[in-house]
Amino acid sequence: MNFLEKRIREDGIVKEGNVLKVDSFLNHQMDIRLFKQMGQEWKRRFADAPINKILTIEASGIGIAAVASEYFDVPVVFAKKSKSINIEGEMYTAEVESFTHKCRNQVIVSKKFLGPEDHVLIIDDFLANGCALQGLISIVQQAGASLEGIGIAVEKGFQQGGRVIRNLGYRLESLAIVESMDAQTGEIVFREQDENQAGEKIL
Amino acid sequence: MNFLEKRIREDGIVKEGNVLKVDSFLNHQMDIRLFKQMGQEWKRRFADAPINKILTIEASGIGIAAVASEYFDVPVVFAKKSKSINIEGEMYTAEVESFTHKCRNQVIVSKKFLGPEDHVLIIDDFLANGCALQGLISIVQQAGASLEGIGIAVEKGFQQGGRVIRNLGYRLESLAIVESMDAQTGEIVFREQDENQAGEKIL
Repeated sequence: MNFLEKRIREDGIVKEGNVLKVDSFLNHQMDIRLFKQMGQEWKRRFADAPINKILTIEASGIGIAAVASEYFDVPVVFAKKSKSINIEGEMYTAEVESFTHKCRNQVIVSKKFLGPEDHVLIIDDFLANGCALQGLISIVQQAGASLEGIGIAVEKGFQQGGRVIRNLGYRLESLAIVESMDAQTGEIVFREQDENQAGEKIL
Repeated sequence: MNFLEKRIREDGIVKEGNVLKVDSFLNHQMDIRLFKQMGQEWKRRFADAPINKILTIEASGIGIAAVASEYFDVPVVFAKKSKSINIEGEMYTAEVESFTHKCRNQVIVSKKFLGPEDHVLIIDDFLANGCALQGLISIVQQAGASLEGIGIAVEKGFQQGGRVIRNLGYRLESLAIVESMDAQTGEIVFREQDENQAGEKIL
């Protein structure tokens, strides 16, 4: 078990309907020391990639991406959720379906901040069905930028998002992949990750 | 001029209608090195305050608060914008009027993450009419927590938000206070700040 899996076991709460609440340390209250560990680990996994920009999406990706970026020493751009129509062609846009809020959002990134010269690492807190991530990838494509990889904190391995992204050939590094969870017992099973990938392994 | 005023002069764009665009380094693309300087400066200004939690509001406050919190070594809680009705009394709620988006939002913070034992520093990117800040202060009050102070990156000194908050006796530290700006010439005038307050003065 790595540091994040351990923390999820300790402080994550499994709810009916395959809901995993990690709001005490990840996406409402934020444990910045933990975010630093996550940043270090992504830097270790993407050490060979020429990343010059991090892209994330509001709201809960922002804190993680901001702290993680210190290990890459690059700026962060966050995609904004917007209901307004794109004006003057100044924005890359993508449609994103939200599982939690059961609505469709348009996400936008200003063309000023992403272009063909960029080598992008996408960072987000959660990967489940993958809609938000697909929107971010679409924006990277529209910009003509190179997508160097994707760093996710918690992936729900039993939903399709991660598999689709890996099938498409993208380099996806999820720090914790939940294989299954049980709301009755609270048990959480993680996918075994390559030993070499688990620098902060806790024995 | 301190480091932030200098950066606003260099990269901020004044638009008609008293709009100051700082999206290239503050609230769309985020310059994390700058955020670190801001965190250091707030830590210097609030060195004597027993802060154990930082409170901010999605979306653009989150990155600044997350990076700044490293200098305080405390967790960050961000208030979420929500259209849904508060359920089961688990949340502190406040109504916030958005100048930019011209709509009313409910902001919520889980009662789990803020209580009478907390000594709170509020951090946000902008202070103009002060609606978002008033909502956050209301949430601190509802929690029975102590408000140790408020750290703002850019205050529009010609709008009422800052004056109201100072009149109410709160300790408000804005790193840059714009007294006036001119969309024709692009000129930005900052309020003179106490020399002793400007550790990073650029001569």
